Amino acid sequence: MAYSIGLDYGTNSVRCLIVDTADGSELGSAIYEYETGEHGVILDSSDHNLARQNPADYIKGLEVTIKKAVAQARKTDRNFNPRDIIGIGVDTTGSTPLPVDKNGRPLSELNKFKDNPNAYAWLWKDHTGFAEAVEITELAKKEHPEYLAKCGGIYSSEWFFSKILHCLRVDPKVFDAAYTWVECADYIPAVLTGTAAPDKLKRGRCPAGHKAMFNHNWGGLPAKDLLAKLDPKLGQLRDRLYNKTYTVDTPAGTLTNTWARKLGLKPAIPVVVGSFDAHLGAIGAGVAPGKLVKIIGTSTCDVSVWPNAQPLPDIPGLCGIVDGSVLPGYFGLEAGQSAVGDIFNWFVNYIQPRGSTKGSHQALTKKAAGLKPGQSGLLALDWNNGNRTILVDQRLTGLILGQTLHTKPEEIYRALIEATAFGALTIINRFEEYGVKISEIINCGGIAEKNPLLMQIYADVTGREMKISRSAQTCALGSAIAGAVVAGKKAGGYDNFFDAQAAMCGMKDVTYKPIAENHKVYQKLYTLYKQLHDAFGLQSWSGKLANVMKDLLNIKDSVNS
Amino acid sequence: MAYSIGLDYGTNSVRCLIVDTADGSELGSAIYEYETGEHGVILDSSDHNLARQNPADYIKGLEVTIKKAVAQARKTDRNFNPRDIIGIGVDTTGSTPLPVDKNGRPLSELNKFKDNPNAYAWLWKDHTGFAEAVEITELAKKEHPEYLAKCGGIYSSEWFFSKILHCLRVDPKVFDAAYTWVECADYIPAVLTGTAAPDKLKRGRCPAGHKAMFNHNWGGLPAKDLLAKLDPKLGQLRDRLYNKTYTVDTPAGTLTNTWARKLGLKPAIPVVVGSFDAHLGAIGAGVAPGKLVKIIGTSTCDVSVWPNAQPLPDIPGLCGIVDGSVLPGYFGLEAGQSAVGDIFNWFVNYIQPRGSTKGSHQALTKKAAGLKPGQSGLLALDWNNGNRTILVDQRLTGLILGQTLHTKPEEIYRALIEATAFGALTIINRFEEYGVKISEIINCGGIAEKNPLLMQIYADVTGREMKISRSAQTCALGSAIAGAVVAGKKAGGYDNFFDAQAAMCGMKDVTYKPIAENHKVYQKLYTLYKQLHDAFGLQSWSGKLANVMKDLLNIKDSVNS
Repeated sequence: MAYSIGLDYGTNSVRCLIVDTADGSELGSAIYEYETGEHGVILDSSDHNLARQNPADYIKGLEVTIKKAVAQARKTDRNFNPRDIIGIGVDTTGSTPLPVDKNGRPLSELNKFKDNPNAYAWLWKDHTGFAEAVEITELAKKEHPEYLAKCGGIYSSEWFFSKILHCLRVDPKVFDAAYTWVECADYIPAVLTGTAAPDKLKRGRCPAGHKAMFNHNWGGLPAKDLLAKLDPKLGQLRDRLYNKTYTVDTPAGTLTNTWARKLGLKPAIPVVVGSFDAHLGAIGAGVAPGKLVKIIGTSTCDVSVWPNAQPLPDIPGLCGIVDGSVLPGYFGLEAGQSAVGDIFNWFVNYIQPRGSTKGSHQALTKKAAGLKPGQSGLLALDWNNGNRTILVDQRLTGLILGQTLHTKPEEIYRALIEATAFGALTIINRFEEYGVKISEIINCGGIAEKNPLLMQIYADVTGREMKISRSAQTCALGSAIAGAVVAGKKAGGYDNFFDAQAAMCGMKDVTYKPIAENHKVYQKLYTLYKQLHDAFGLQSWSGKLANVMKDLLNIKDSVNS
Repeated sequence: MAYSIGLDYGTNSVRCLIVDTADGSELGSAIYEYETGEHGVILDSSDHNLARQNPADYIKGLEVTIKKAVAQARKTDRNFNPRDIIGIGVDTTGSTPLPVDKNGRPLSELNKFKDNPNAYAWLWKDHTGFAEAVEITELAKKEHPEYLAKCGGIYSSEWFFSKILHCLRVDPKVFDAAYTWVECADYIPAVLTGTAAPDKLKRGRCPAGHKAMFNHNWGGLPAKDLLAKLDPKLGQLRDRLYNKTYTVDTPAGTLTNTWARKLGLKPAIPVVVGSFDAHLGAIGAGVAPGKLVKIIGTSTCDVSVWPNAQPLPDIPGLCGIVDGSVLPGYFGLEAGQSAVGDIFNWFVNYIQPRGSTKGSHQALTKKAAGLKPGQSGLLALDWNNGNRTILVDQRLTGLILGQTLHTKPEEIYRALIEATAFGALTIINRFEEYGVKISEIINCGGIAEKNPLLMQIYADVTGREMKISRSAQTCALGSAIAGAVVAGKKAGGYDNFFDAQAAMCGMKDVTYKPIAENHKVYQKLYTLYKQLHDAFGLQSWSGKLANVMKDLLNIKDSVNS
């Protein structure tokens, strides 16, 4: 018997999953809600861009959830022994960097910074560095456009250097006190393996490649002189960052005796180099060349892979193409939609059609399911939170068209679902336009599992079968798979990811196949969606409407300032 | 002392107003809700296009309201004597034609047709003749495009010949039994003056010119051979219609002794030739060259006049340019928006944001009033019911753009109000583009009186002062003014409309002046509105988006069929 642990650090909580390496069955799982801030996020009422986390919550969550999951696994009739756990994998949100001292200790643990949120972890959705993101993008565009070509053409305020540069600007004391900065994904494995000291720390390829412009084509991180032009101190920091990164078949180290004792596990089992949740989620869902994994939640992350031995052009609009960021030996291809579930939540929670009770998701979904494609005459764009792929433009906004004097809430609700489906199709088409053929689509995440209407609409719109990943915790499963691979076949794990996935991944029985007559209508509707998409999204479009949403936002900004 | 009576036949009720001809003060008013059908409209649950009225309700309403208004006037401290009433004016909805026999008696009063809605009055909003409207438009386009040039380029399903041709097609027995067809506006004065017999009946210029393509340029009604091509029987009917029409300075006749006795009025006082409500409303609001009257309700009617001695080009998109349809000696210019109040009603009643109570007009208006122009980032098109002026296109639909994940109902509500204001500005601009300078705008109708936010937005958007007509019953007042003019100066009335208006019309004290900083923002927003307007509304527009709304409606139609 051999088991692997997957740890999945989300925005509000951490989950631990104990998985049988033989078949992926889940023996124990536990969740820990972070204690600091609101639902685990430190906010600032005077600055809605700020979102921080307490690194201490990560460590407490580790201990609580592993112990609980072990206890749960013991209660199964499987004769479970925690000493049969052979490896641990870790995924986290990102980019979520935290400043650490010379010993790799988070600054937030130092007394003088204990009340300073700038010394805490800068959560992925912290946008305080929005001005710095523009600055980085503009400089890189001029001096090193190749840096941006692999991350969609724009460096985001959510990413590593935007956050660090912003800290340097607003709180130099914290910046100066930081020996280096560490992604949460790198920090957790380092803690478990006693490798947090900067000279021992192993950095993951995935965070580095997708958020810090790390690429072997140009020798790793962005050039020192580019960073120095942003600020001399940022240039100096580069020397204290890293030149080497590791894929998820590499152990960050082995579990320390202290941790083994505390958790009741065998000492010296390997802990995998950390990675982002969506990427290990993709592994947990069975990602492989030709397979697209869609992780559908408030937003989506669409992940596929491509053999790194085969040529692959830059694919405009993809958030990232990084060698080894998902599976070793493969380019990780990441796309996504900035809002999916969040758009439905907006309609239900902000507009509250028919009041909040009658207008709930369930009621709207039920009524929307009774409508035929095209029946409402409505068409929407899924841009309420901008467009990540393929337009990479945060300053785009929503659009609904076709309202009459009789348009009903469920018609709008369905049009919003359809809009996200059209957005999903646009991503698939973009992959294929650049030669990345998608032959299979696997969905995971709460919405995929719980909303048959949405899945059927996705099938009908794309004309492709929608499969659903079996595990309800695909990210944690992916981490556990990485744990099993790092442990190796001899220990009861696997030598490679495809073998591990073949054994440990699975699909739900229910799948959604396109209904021909619906697909026919949606093909017509997609033509119209694409017209709107190009008209409002592309500067190059003949009719010149791409100014409309941006001018509105500029007017809004000037009125509000 | 001299008084005049104004009768205003609306969609659900008729109002009577007794007005002092000296100063327009209102001594008595009464309302009668039609009894037949739902709120006075005969509907057909199997055909939502059908809307008919019972002519008997019109006659009963006449008696009830005049008597009530007289009784009310008697109670004032003005020493009122009904024998001082010198004239009666009548306005009605239209085109609302009814089939009558050789004696001018409505077919609905004949026993054999008493349960047949086709023998009743075909209310303005009856759209059963939609196919016939297309047929008439296509034939006229080919053979007599000049007919359409004066009515916006499209013959509507709401109009005279569409309805009659439809009756001919679906119920030839009624058609054959009808000696002729009479507009409601012509029927009421005929009843009061005993001139309902077809050889005595005087037809109003306004209904004829705006709804039946009557124009002296081509000798009156459309050519017999054109009507005969639609159906030989329709050609024959033309001989039993009319060749002469009358403006509102003409008496239809004088009050019969029977009616005088019944109503307690002096016999033989003049009753004016009938006209449509919006046109007499314009008179009641003080319409004159350079003055635009906006009657704002569920939809709007925008009316101005232009001296018929001065050259005036066809103005594309205007619903009608008819010599003498409003004031004698002047072209009546009619424009309008297909939905204004109806759009706000849609949002409140169909979407029910925050539930129907909290999301009521009042609550939304209050919150919307707290927003600054441009603050929401939203922009809407006011096309939920198509666009009457300037695009004359019923197959256009609504659009809202700029939504984020935080867009609130009051922001949408305000964007909808702003959209109707932009639509209003587009109409004003169209008048002025063709040389009809608008120097004053007078608003009337429930929304104008009761919604200061809307009026302020209209002022801010158009950059013009918005005045409000003093009378709450501007249409009935206009009818009373016509009654005073037809009675003449000697009787205590007036020789001409401008004298009568100068004495009898007035504005409310409150007016809405544009706020410079708001206007500045709205100028920017209007530029964007016009971009969307042209992109989605004009076939000729470079970017080719005009197909989008129509394709959606075509798909909707094919799915629903």
